[in-house]
Amino acid sequence: MDIPPHENTPHWKQRAYRIIFESDTPAGQTFDAVLLVAIVLSVLTVMLESVSQIAAQYGSLLRAVEWAFTGLFLLEYIIRLVVVRRPLAYALSLLGIIDLLAVLPTLASLVMLGSHYLVVIRTLRLLRVFRVFKLGRFVGEGEFILNALKASRFKILVFLTAVLTLVIVIGTFMYVVEGGQNGFTSIPKSIYWAIVTLTTVGYGDISPGTILGQTMASILMILGYAIIAVPTGIVSAQMARPTSDAPTFKQATCHICQAGDHRDDAEFCWNCGEKL
Amino acid sequence: MDIPPHENTPHWKQRAYRIIFESDTPAGQTFDAVLLVAIVLSVLTVMLESVSQIAAQYGSLLRAVEWAFTGLFLLEYIIRLVVVRRPLAYALSLLGIIDLLAVLPTLASLVMLGSHYLVVIRTLRLLRVFRVFKLGRFVGEGEFILNALKASRFKILVFLTAVLTLVIVIGTFMYVVEGGQNGFTSIPKSIYWAIVTLTTVGYGDISPGTILGQTMASILMILGYAIIAVPTGIVSAQMARPTSDAPTFKQATCHICQAGDHRDDAEFCWNCGEKL
Amino acid sequence: MDIPPHENTPHWKQRAYRIIFESDTPAGQTFDAVLLVAIVLSVLTVMLESVSQIAAQYGSLLRAVEWAFTGLFLLEYIIRLVVVRRPLAYALSLLGIIDLLAVLPTLASLVMLGSHYLVVIRTLRLLRVFRVFKLGRFVGEGEFILNALKASRFKILVFLTAVLTLVIVIGTFMYVVEGGQNGFTSIPKSIYWAIVTLTTVGYGDISPGTILGQTMASILMILGYAIIAVPTGIVSAQMARPTSDAPTFKQATCHICQAGDHRDDAEFCWNCGEKL
Amino acid sequence: MDIPPHENTPHWKQRAYRIIFESDTPAGQTFDAVLLVAIVLSVLTVMLESVSQIAAQYGSLLRAVEWAFTGLFLLEYIIRLVVVRRPLAYALSLLGIIDLLAVLPTLASLVMLGSHYLVVIRTLRLLRVFRVFKLGRFVGEGEFILNALKASRFKILVFLTAVLTLVIVIGTFMYVVEGGQNGFTSIPKSIYWAIVTLTTVGYGDISPGTILGQTMASILMILGYAIIAVPTGIVSAQMARPTSDAPTFKQATCHICQAGDHRDDAEFCWNCGEKL
Repeated sequence: MDIPPHENTPHWKQRAYRIIFESDTPAGQTFDAVLLVAIVLSVLTVMLESVSQIAAQYGSLLRAVEWAFTGLFLLEYIIRLVVVRRPLAYALSLLGIIDLLAVLPTLASLVMLGSHYLVVIRTLRLLRVFRVFKLGRFVGEGEFILNALKASRFKILVFLTAVLTLVIVIGTFMYVVEGGQNGFTSIPKSIYWAIVTLTTVGYGDISPGTILGQTMASILMILGYAIIAVPTGIVSAQMARPTSDAPTFKQATCHICQAGDHRDDAEFCWNCGEKL
Repeated sequence: MDIPPHENTPHWKQRAYRIIFESDTPAGQTFDAVLLVAIVLSVLTVMLESVSQIAAQYGSLLRAVEWAFTGLFLLEYIIRLVVVRRPLAYALSLLGIIDLLAVLPTLASLVMLGSHYLVVIRTLRLLRVFRVFKLGRFVGEGEFILNALKASRFKILVFLTAVLTLVIVIGTFMYVVEGGQNGFTSIPKSIYWAIVTLTTVGYGDISPGTILGQTMASILMILGYAIIAVPTGIVSAQMARPTSDAPTFKQATCHICQAGDHRDDAEFCWNCGEKL
Repeated sequence: MDIPPHENTPHWKQRAYRIIFESDTPAGQTFDAVLLVAIVLSVLTVMLESVSQIAAQYGSLLRAVEWAFTGLFLLEYIIRLVVVRRPLAYALSLLGIIDLLAVLPTLASLVMLGSHYLVVIRTLRLLRVFRVFKLGRFVGEGEFILNALKASRFKILVFLTAVLTLVIVIGTFMYVVEGGQNGFTSIPKSIYWAIVTLTTVGYGDISPGTILGQTMASILMILGYAIIAVPTGIVSAQMARPTSDAPTFKQATCHICQAGDHRDDAEFCWNCGEKL
Repeated sequence: MDIPPHENTPHWKQRAYRIIFESDTPAGQTFDAVLLVAIVLSVLTVMLESVSQIAAQYGSLLRAVEWAFTGLFLLEYIIRLVVVRRPLAYALSLLGIIDLLAVLPTLASLVMLGSHYLVVIRTLRLLRVFRVFKLGRFVGEGEFILNALKASRFKILVFLTAVLTLVIVIGTFMYVVEGGQNGFTSIPKSIYWAIVTLTTVGYGDISPGTILGQTMASILMILGYAIIAVPTGIVSAQMARPTSDAPTFKQATCHICQAGDHRDDAEFCWNCGEKL
């Protein structure tokens, strides 16, 4: 994703690239650490600003700090564009877009002035929190988890589809059973309740009042309690799968009998005895 | 389940059969996609109709759309009956019954006219959502999950019976302990509470008020938290089990090179090519 | 647990024993089925009696039915005592005690007459629900689950002790942090809240109001969400463990070199080659 | 951690050390049991003191008992310091610090007299509950669980970081979507809600009111329901992994009898006794 600068680029550019884009030099590591702290602090600033008591007292200070961070991140974004060999490729990469999204909301609040729209702009500003995603450069273990999830993505999709079908049907039934009472005011709301119940979250903002409704809710809960075993089983089985000590198999098939599944170290076909 | 038409059936019937019942032709795939969209839209129509604000404004429009979809699905159902070789077998198959149930509720609202009964009919109409089940033609991964669940169905049944016994006993105790107060107004209601608690849903519409009651609730919660390991363990163990499609190995070793781990159906040693 | 009658006992006793205690004859199976239905019906009767609306209308009928069932179960208990070879052994076995407890509460309500104590007696009556436990004669699969739980009972105990320590410490902290407000009125109540939260039940009858409290609650929740993996992992690993196809080991050690862990079918010591 | 006394120490010191620090003598075991009971009773005393109704009646008694226990624990702490060979090492060990923390809060309430500060001191006193941790000397099974958690600590950390990022982003979005209404009064509070929801605790003190909010909440719940599979899978896979104390097997077979599955360290065939 990050493209190394060309061999012919000036030395300072290569150095800046190394510091900003890579972490294999002391300077690069310091830069990353400072960036990480700045991101956390800027996120904290936005968070504190949303607390009305704090905003009333330190509102202008927090906004100033936020603008300072926005300025720094913007500067960083521009430098990244300058030192990278193919700026457009960077700008269109996932990380590049996130870098841009991290400064846009605050900038956007500048252009539009109508107090009426400001609330909406503040909404966009909060997107900055996405910047946190940049922290997500985990390796090894993270990849292990992702690989396990990737390997079982179809199974999980099938499971989620089944769950969705279930909550739609049961939500509709509950709407009928409760007759629009006890918070089951519409089918979408009843489906929302079914999800809240099946996932064992159980807010209690909506809960069945009729005997039939409570019976159905009980069935749904026990179902939810039991079928959580399915995604867990899928991922557990995937992770427990031996990765290397079980004999692995060649992709190639025997050129005589087309038999496949030969051991990786096999020299002869198990089916016809031909040299592989 | 779907029966291919007889060889002697007219060509258009065979063509229609292929398009409607199978998905191995471009036309058949288009048909399936259109059907899928129609099902989702018709379900959405019914859902929106149940939201009182939307029903007040677009009620007649939504009902018209619903009737249009019902007409289409009815037409589709009739065509299916015509083109299939054994209509009765189709009509009595699970998918056939679901196809019929998808149109019946709307039609039923026609025959009965008394406004008093209409509410009940609307109830039946909602069964249409079952049509969604037709989407459930997953293969491979879906079958893997179903097989794992099927293989452990007795274990899960035993587990559910144990859970049911537990919630009946604890629910009764809680009714006695709380003395009919704090929402524990009857044994069935207390059992409902026990299920809500054991499954860790926890609505909070009923929650113990006495010290003894809260102690028992705590025990029930920790129990529920611990025994969720049982269905999860059952399904995980089942899924982690090597399946039959992976090659299994002979116990015997080659009498020439002593190599082991031969495929069960191998006739020659993979190591030296000797006849096993 | 059930003791077969002596060879010299009269024929009718042997027959009655077979019908009542065993299920390998058609008559015995019919008896078991009838008993099962009677138990379910009697439990339902007690449940319905606890619903005040139903009790107001059918109270005397339900009480009559309850007395009829109590009479039947008492009769059954006496017959069991008569036909079994060692009545005392039966009476003191777990099933015998449960059989007795199934009739005692109703009988106890007879002796004591004061209306003031009746409420307490009704409490005891509800213990009859324990009779349901007699249904618990599952085999095979049930044993598999129980064995897995038994094999991991120490691990689960350690886990539960750790969880208990955790909720005591965190509950106490929360009592201090929330300062006795927001429902955290005492340490036991705060511990109750910690259990409700850690097990992800979350009634919401008590929930933190201060920022520090909500932060600690968040940590507790994520902890609860993560450590549920522990009991699940324990049971999954136990169930996934191969039971018989892996070679098992002799308890005995070699009498020459004291080496242990010999294969069950080993005839020679793997360490010194001595005949075992 | 516990340092055995030097060989030249007086006999009574060695004896006291054995009784207090070890549990391999009858006296040592009695000491441990008494200590355990004393710890549980002292914790119960502090708990009961926090219940206002009990404190009103037995407050002075409970405080006296608490002081008695504090005296005993202080005496025990001093004796431990005396009999141990390297008192400083003990005092600075984890167990030594916990021993000290178990008596400090009560003592601290003595020095400071201002009624205004007393509340804060009572807070510190509650730390005594930490003493319970001393019970945590589990072996074997406890170590197995800890090892499994230790081996997967990086995976769990990565998972927790991902979860934290998720709740920050979704919490911020919900604050914007709900517009500060329905309890989503600030970003930190919305993040708190996201944690309550993702972990399936679901208090219901904050729950979304808008349609978009409920849709996002539904997604978050299903996500939380599905990704709980990740920590569970990690720990299950770790625990299911064969540990090193189980004998492993040679791949090679006996050249005389072709028997396989020899222990890795076997020098002779278990079947025919031939040198391998």
